[in-house]
Amino acid sequence: MLLDQQFLFTPGPTPVPNRVYHAMNQPMIGHRGNAFPKLLEDVSTRLMPVFGSLLPVLVIAGSGTSALETAVSNVVEENDEVVVIVTGAFGDRLASICEAFGANVHRLNIEWGKTCSPDQLEDYLKSLQKNVKAVFATYCETSTGVLNPILELGKVTKQSTDALFVVDGVSCIGAVPVEMEEWGIDILVSGSQKALMLPPGLAFVAISERARETIEKCQSKRFYLDLNKYLSSYEKEKSTPFTPAVSLIYGAQEVCQMIEEEGFHNVIKRHQVLKDMVRVGLEAIELPLLVSDSEASPTVTAVKTADDSSKQIKKMLQDKFAITLGGGQKRLKGEIFRIGHMGYCTPFDVLKILSSIEMTLHELDRKQVLGVATKRAQEVWLQNV
Amino acid sequence: MLLDQQFLFTPGPTPVPNRVYHAMNQPMIGHRGNAFPKLLEDVSTRLMPVFGSLLPVLVIAGSGTSALETAVSNVVEENDEVVVIVTGAFGDRLASICEAFGANVHRLNIEWGKTCSPDQLEDYLKSLQKNVKAVFATYCETSTGVLNPILELGKVTKQSTDALFVVDGVSCIGAVPVEMEEWGIDILVSGSQKALMLPPGLAFVAISERARETIEKCQSKRFYLDLNKYLSSYEKEKSTPFTPAVSLIYGAQEVCQMIEEEGFHNVIKRHQVLKDMVRVGLEAIELPLLVSDSEASPTVTAVKTADDSSKQIKKMLQDKFAITLGGGQKRLKGEIFRIGHMGYCTPFDVLKILSSIEMTLHELDRKQVLGVATKRAQEVWLQNV
Repeated sequence: MLLDQQFLFTPGPTPVPNRVYHAMNQPMIGHRGNAFPKLLEDVSTRLMPVFGSLLPVLVIAGSGTSALETAVSNVVEENDEVVVIVTGAFGDRLASICEAFGANVHRLNIEWGKTCSPDQLEDYLKSLQKNVKAVFATYCETSTGVLNPILELGKVTKQSTDALFVVDGVSCIGAVPVEMEEWGIDILVSGSQKALMLPPGLAFVAISERARETIEKCQSKRFYLDLNKYLSSYEKEKSTPFTPAVSLIYGAQEVCQMIEEEGFHNVIKRHQVLKDMVRVGLEAIELPLLVSDSEASPTVTAVKTADDSSKQIKKMLQDKFAITLGGGQKRLKGEIFRIGHMGYCTPFDVLKILSSIEMTLHELDRKQVLGVATKRAQEVWLQNV
Repeated sequence: MLLDQQFLFTPGPTPVPNRVYHAMNQPMIGHRGNAFPKLLEDVSTRLMPVFGSLLPVLVIAGSGTSALETAVSNVVEENDEVVVIVTGAFGDRLASICEAFGANVHRLNIEWGKTCSPDQLEDYLKSLQKNVKAVFATYCETSTGVLNPILELGKVTKQSTDALFVVDGVSCIGAVPVEMEEWGIDILVSGSQKALMLPPGLAFVAISERARETIEKCQSKRFYLDLNKYLSSYEKEKSTPFTPAVSLIYGAQEVCQMIEEEGFHNVIKRHQVLKDMVRVGLEAIELPLLVSDSEASPTVTAVKTADDSSKQIKKMLQDKFAITLGGGQKRLKGEIFRIGHMGYCTPFDVLKILSSIEMTLHELDRKQVLGVATKRAQEVWLQNV
């Protein structure tokens, strides 16, 4: 059956709007000419509300992991005591990067599928009795679909320690509220290929004035990801120390335009509606969700499946309906599938996903599911038109 | 006067062909699905002849400097003795990166505008009397436009030391011959935005089996640029350890197609013709070249200018003829301008540049230059049709 295209609903990379591709196709420019500084300043300042940052957002050529490494290697020195809140595979990656840079890493391990509560962090920091240099947290843990309570975790960090509070915002920034100053966030990083609707290849780093002091003093060996170089180049000439990924930055400019046209508060609201549609729909056809309503991210939803059906459902969605979802990662491999609903995603996309899941379950002998998830999702949409 | 577009002739970034943009506009795919491994394997293997590599070329999301750092941080440990041949600003950058990673750096400083001769390297290595872990060289030094004799420098390195021979090929790979095994190159890196006709944002790394052993043993702190992770991910699943810059890799696939259609030996020959056209043209109008014929790169040509005329010429070319050239860097600032003629560049482009320089000089009161450079360049072209 002709379906005219493949549909990508993994929790990153996510679909790229045609107008963003169009912007990326602008003729190449040199980064030492007059045009590039204007482009970079435009993007860096228009991203400030999206990152809730008081300073222009720095742009690095690299993937999300390079953003995480930037957050680590500019703060953490050999034998520093750091706390990493691990709520899933990406918290685990943050801890691994801290270890790679020689820190004494204290992992606050949370059951996968749950958020870290402020009390858990407070108790952990108290019991630790160490002079902690930084607390690392994941805003949306992509591997499980929880959205950690960053505002509260930031408050606890500031009340209990002098540590910097460093947040991985890769799979949610651009879809959720955030205020770095008010929430006590010192470094907030993200990537281009999630809620920001771009192809992968850009890392974004927002910092506080307080973080800046630490970054300046940090002795860790680094060159390409040395934030002092990016800060200096931006301040002196609104440029980057190394050749920037120009086409992706043109794309980022168009993304800023799209977010402003929709209104950032509407973007945030849309993601809430998408999340609610997905969740009530899946519940209506009795697919168990990994994460509770209050802990769930508006950008990605993980679905638990009995025995081996996760693989089977994912495969049929791909083969019959051209829909790509994410699988489980690490210890959740084979136990869940994940639906990404962020960035360039509309309620119609959610209806498409739910319809396809209904038809898949129907083909796999689950009776009376056709239309059931769809109906509940439609109701949610209508309540939010 | 309508000129319909801007013309970018800096030594990187360089113009991107429309068919490459078109390829980059393909719908986004996930890197954990079935399509991406095929794409990556296709690109990594088709780049092998371009890098003269016996192993698939590794692809990293990042700019050229991230490629250089990869070459350093996977080999060099604290207090290692390394030699860096410095023929200009990018050799200097290589040395800085080695220093950032704690090496004892021995700089073989060559006058800017000259290549390093095999004898110079041999004498230096002899006089040094150190157990050198790696010798770093720049193939084309972008800041001056020399093409170092890498084949001979590789031979000297192998004969005089047990060191790895590591080559920065950023501003020439894709336009020049290279054979890693025969020439004794252990690591060869490049970026996407020069002779490879892509936007900036991809780093390419080719390694020898011998380099691999060193990389496996290297204890330097690194994570995002740890080649062991890229090697393992490529071998196990033809993927990358971290989210790849998918759209740029689609573009790279189209670039491989273009190179194969033209024939790589013809690509190399074309760059020789472009270089000859530029040089005879500029000589005909008595603009002094920084580099001698035998030492000049086929990808970039530096032009010396008396007093302040470099700035003036560059500005008029930009303002009147929409042509962007590169300026001088560091100690050559204000003393030269540089013409990039690599990648997506044809003889007509060179005629366009030479015509515009003629008209610029004419406007600046240099008489009898109109058509003079053009005529000589045409003759070269006709000899090579």
